[in-house]
Amino acid sequence: MKGQFITFEGTEGSGKTTIIDNIEKELIAKGYKVLRTREPGGSKISEQIRNIILNVENTEMDKITEALLYAASRRQHVNEVIKPHLENGYIILCDRYLDSSLAYQGYARGIGIQKIYDLNQYATDGLQPDITFYIDVKPIIGMNRIAKNNRHQDRLDLEQMSFHELVYKGYQEVIKLFPERIKIISGVGEIKEVSDRVRLELNSFLEKNHVS
Amino acid sequence: MKGQFITFEGTEGSGKTTIIDNIEKELIAKGYKVLRTREPGGSKISEQIRNIILNVENTEMDKITEALLYAASRRQHVNEVIKPHLENGYIILCDRYLDSSLAYQGYARGIGIQKIYDLNQYATDGLQPDITFYIDVKPIIGMNRIAKNNRHQDRLDLEQMSFHELVYKGYQEVIKLFPERIKIISGVGEIKEVSDRVRLELNSFLEKNHVS
Repeated sequence: MKGQFITFEGTEGSGKTTIIDNIEKELIAKGYKVLRTREPGGSKISEQIRNIILNVENTEMDKITEALLYAASRRQHVNEVIKPHLENGYIILCDRYLDSSLAYQGYARGIGIQKIYDLNQYATDGLQPDITFYIDVKPIIGMNRIAKNNRHQDRLDLEQMSFHELVYKGYQEVIKLFPERIKIISGVGEIKEVSDRVRLELNSFLEKNHVS
Repeated sequence: MKGQFITFEGTEGSGKTTIIDNIEKELIAKGYKVLRTREPGGSKISEQIRNIILNVENTEMDKITEALLYAASRRQHVNEVIKPHLENGYIILCDRYLDSSLAYQGYARGIGIQKIYDLNQYATDGLQPDITFYIDVKPIIGMNRIAKNNRHQDRLDLEQMSFHELVYKGYQEVIKLFPERIKIISGVGEIKEVSDRVRLELNSFLEKNHVS
């Protein structure tokens, strides 16, 4: 069986991580082979690159340096981890992928969605997710959650609120480009309810694609 | 006065570092403002990227990951260090730059010189050196020197001899593309003699360009 490449997207504090926890447990309980991974990161070299990108002391990082580092990290992750697991029939749950780069670097940093798309086509040899869940939470709510939970904040969390608003707008643009692939999931309410919304869409997707 | 961007290229063990030492001392003695730098590296973030590229434990690094990391490192170096110093009238002596990527990643790794050129045009906004000194030493001689000197070897030094031969051929291709900019300096003989050959070419270049 060919695997499935499933990605999760959203602004900071959208609850992605907990939702993926829930989905992962259920899929494993159902007997699927599951690989849970994340970006930036997901392989030894990619995690080294992640540390440079998210280091709060790297305030002088140029936006194109940042875009190239994300692309390098993704290249290694795709080639070393994602592709081999897809070929071995795994369901891959990936916390952030291409759409994050389009929304953050392409739109919010102002590099341009097309430029970042082209760079990533090169880096991934065009590997697209089979389905993407976008957890829709307004940035002000997400940032309040992060503040409440006292979560460790990285270089991107520490951006101004205006930046997070731009990322939110960026995701709206990206969704317009891939309306078939990206499923919008309302992030309103308890995290269990949000996870249930994802599960409903996911089960229907797996059935339609005869993944059993 | 506008600065000058001078790069030094060559295969491993070509003696670049010592030659740049000599040239640097002379230019400083003549009263020039000199910035000596190197690639990959040359800024805080770029040196972090250098550590990933050259780490001997990162044997699983994909060749396109490597090319993207070099481009990211170069972007930060150019924007943060090289361009501001050029604007302030410095003579910049840079140990490796674009031509290394063309010879190593483009030719020797087989990605293609054009692909690597395009990626780097994007990363540097097209910044080319004003003059480049290619120190011409056959790989077998260079690698013997390294072995004799007991120099610390990085991930690229540790490549097979056949790889270093390919890099040498790659430089020949690159020189054909930029015959005006790249000066071929014979690396045969004592390092002092080689430095003298560079100095002769450099003085004539500085005079021609009225750099005083």
